[in-house]
Amino acid sequence: MVSDSLPVTIADVEAAAAALARVVVRTPCAESQTLSAITGTRVWCKLEGFQYTASFKERGARWFLDQLDAGARSRGVVAASAGNHAQGVAHHAALLGIPATIVMPHGTPFTKVSRTEVLGARVVVEGDGFHDARAHAITLAAESGATFVPAFDDPHVIAGQGTVALEILEQAPELDTLVVPVGGGGLLAGCAVAVQARRPDVRVVGVQVDRYAGLAHALALGDAAAPSGGMTIAEGIAVVEPGALTTAIARQLVDDIVVVTEDDVERAVGLYLDIEKVVVEGAGAASLAALLAHPELFAGHNCVLVASGANIDPRVLSSVLLRSLARNGRLVRLRMEVPDRPGALANVASLIGAAGGNIVDVDHHRDRLGVPLREAVLEVSVETRDTDHAARIRRDLEANGFRQADA
Amino acid sequence: MVSDSLPVTIADVEAAAAALARVVVRTPCAESQTLSAITGTRVWCKLEGFQYTASFKERGARWFLDQLDAGARSRGVVAASAGNHAQGVAHHAALLGIPATIVMPHGTPFTKVSRTEVLGARVVVEGDGFHDARAHAITLAAESGATFVPAFDDPHVIAGQGTVALEILEQAPELDTLVVPVGGGGLLAGCAVAVQARRPDVRVVGVQVDRYAGLAHALALGDAAAPSGGMTIAEGIAVVEPGALTTAIARQLVDDIVVVTEDDVERAVGLYLDIEKVVVEGAGAASLAALLAHPELFAGHNCVLVASGANIDPRVLSSVLLRSLARNGRLVRLRMEVPDRPGALANVASLIGAAGGNIVDVDHHRDRLGVPLREAVLEVSVETRDTDHAARIRRDLEANGFRQADA
Repeated sequence: MVSDSLPVTIADVEAAAAALARVVVRTPCAESQTLSAITGTRVWCKLEGFQYTASFKERGARWFLDQLDAGARSRGVVAASAGNHAQGVAHHAALLGIPATIVMPHGTPFTKVSRTEVLGARVVVEGDGFHDARAHAITLAAESGATFVPAFDDPHVIAGQGTVALEILEQAPELDTLVVPVGGGGLLAGCAVAVQARRPDVRVVGVQVDRYAGLAHALALGDAAAPSGGMTIAEGIAVVEPGALTTAIARQLVDDIVVVTEDDVERAVGLYLDIEKVVVEGAGAASLAALLAHPELFAGHNCVLVASGANIDPRVLSSVLLRSLARNGRLVRLRMEVPDRPGALANVASLIGAAGGNIVDVDHHRDRLGVPLREAVLEVSVETRDTDHAARIRRDLEANGFRQADA
Repeated sequence: MVSDSLPVTIADVEAAAAALARVVVRTPCAESQTLSAITGTRVWCKLEGFQYTASFKERGARWFLDQLDAGARSRGVVAASAGNHAQGVAHHAALLGIPATIVMPHGTPFTKVSRTEVLGARVVVEGDGFHDARAHAITLAAESGATFVPAFDDPHVIAGQGTVALEILEQAPELDTLVVPVGGGGLLAGCAVAVQARRPDVRVVGVQVDRYAGLAHALALGDAAAPSGGMTIAEGIAVVEPGALTTAIARQLVDDIVVVTEDDVERAVGLYLDIEKVVVEGAGAASLAALLAHPELFAGHNCVLVASGANIDPRVLSSVLLRSLARNGRLVRLRMEVPDRPGALANVASLIGAAGGNIVDVDHHRDRLGVPLREAVLEVSVETRDTDHAARIRRDLEANGFRQADA
């Protein structure tokens, strides 16, 4: 592979690293015994969620802003993002005294608007979806003489993100595989440039979610489809079109792109909370999801997973926690038709209690279509030891005349 | 203060630190800009949740086990705990090849049983509550020749816990106040011994929850009542009676005990998730709760908060996340009586949507006592920007004839 024809060189990444050392956090990268045991490979986690704005995005944003001369700084910057790029630009623009305007599409959650405003930026809500918002931001910049700060497809942004890999090479020199979440591809491209120059023996693997596997599709890796879009828990990498520069770099330097499902990512977010005791957003957990979904690609290796950020909606996090209990058979929801007479609920509750189940909540309805007259529907959530225990409780209920099905 | 008459000396803590350096994690202790801004004091967090068993308890357990001779090791150890002590003993007994039995009271959540079993211990479920379980464990030990591993009231256990403070003194030398959660008092006593010897200028403050303020009561600090017991989110420090040795040390060396409420602790757990992106259990978050509840005691100081552990029930964590949205006015539940005719729900939904509220869930009932015939009760959860925004949505609904109250 010839990397000197690339738009970003190791010298660029090193220059970024020298400048960023004083202004971004050198995030931890520790080995996890338990995740290693679960995935069958040695695992280290690079936790970029411990940045001030809780993602790696501020590295590239800061290094881009560092390039602006005094005139450009006074005219300000504009960016389009509803997420981590917005916060990265807002925070470092404020530190540098540069006025910043962030364009967010209509429907952006309130918390994202207010988090960006708190960091000192002006937020403009405009455009249906990210592409509209981006077009509006470019127009705003052109009209006002401000500089547009690209989210990923820019040499300085890419070089800034590559500093993540330089830290990893020092923190976990045993690595032989680096696993990186991919949306627009800035983080992947920057890391690939650094790894290719310093440790060409290390395999660089990108990870995308199946609804947004744009880079895998562009590189014709596997049978990845063009992005279909839609809701994803990994909104930080929900990018329809990867960058031109990032794609060119990835084509030369990246060994593989792995595609994971929503379910894989959700499991990974849950494991980070449960095992590592850290919050990792969907996009950040995609690298762990790759190990869960495709263990054969990583078994026996020394893998560093970039957990790229930690900004996740509290309601989503709450659902992940509850659904993970259900997935492990530790929370089951039973739905039964019971005679609408005194004692039926008590009877069901006694049977569940005697079997060692712990009732978490109860819903009791009458007058529903589909429920015979004089019967009621009883839905009960029960905490159980595991799937076997849940099955035993179901059998006890059936044996006592309470037919049930999953609710 | 004269500390040479105490049952634990700095030499004991230093010996423990030398032995533990290779077998427990030197957990991070980083400054938090955002928590500092929120609390009005400089804040560092010592995150003991990053231990293998996710709490500081393994330090004391390991140092206690290190003292046992070959004969005692072969006869095994017994402990009583449903929590972090259980996991600490189980893990280090397994590492040392010592058979371990853990007695847990009836009603212990399944996850705690299985987590301890996975670490290699035999679990016996016996006794109503912790005191019964402890009595049973002591009997078991006496009958079998095994050694009982105390949870806090033992010189080696206290010395082991004190190694937390030795690390802190190196990691955050600027500190002038150390804030430590207190149940039995082992962590507080050990830290106080270390701080008194090395940095007698540093103020040592314990924190208890109001239902279990046993040490504050014993030391007659403030007007703390004797423990009333009952449910607490801080189950790791829900100890009715502090230890004799730990109380004696605290009486000589601890500057103050602060008492916090359940609500303070819940807010602190939520802040750790939201701001620091880490999971901290209720007991561990008590130190941050003290700063939130009593800012006047800490303003302008350099405070290190010991976040002592991270083992929290996923259902509790899920509730904390949702309740924190409600507390900040970002999730409101509206309850209305609406005419039971087509269009009423659509009307309410349109009004909320037009006001910029995001409907999260809907519950629609008829046939409830207290609901007039021909009316229905509509409960709607709405995501809002803040309390002002929520108030505006309420006014719009009222103005259109939908009277409502908090549900």
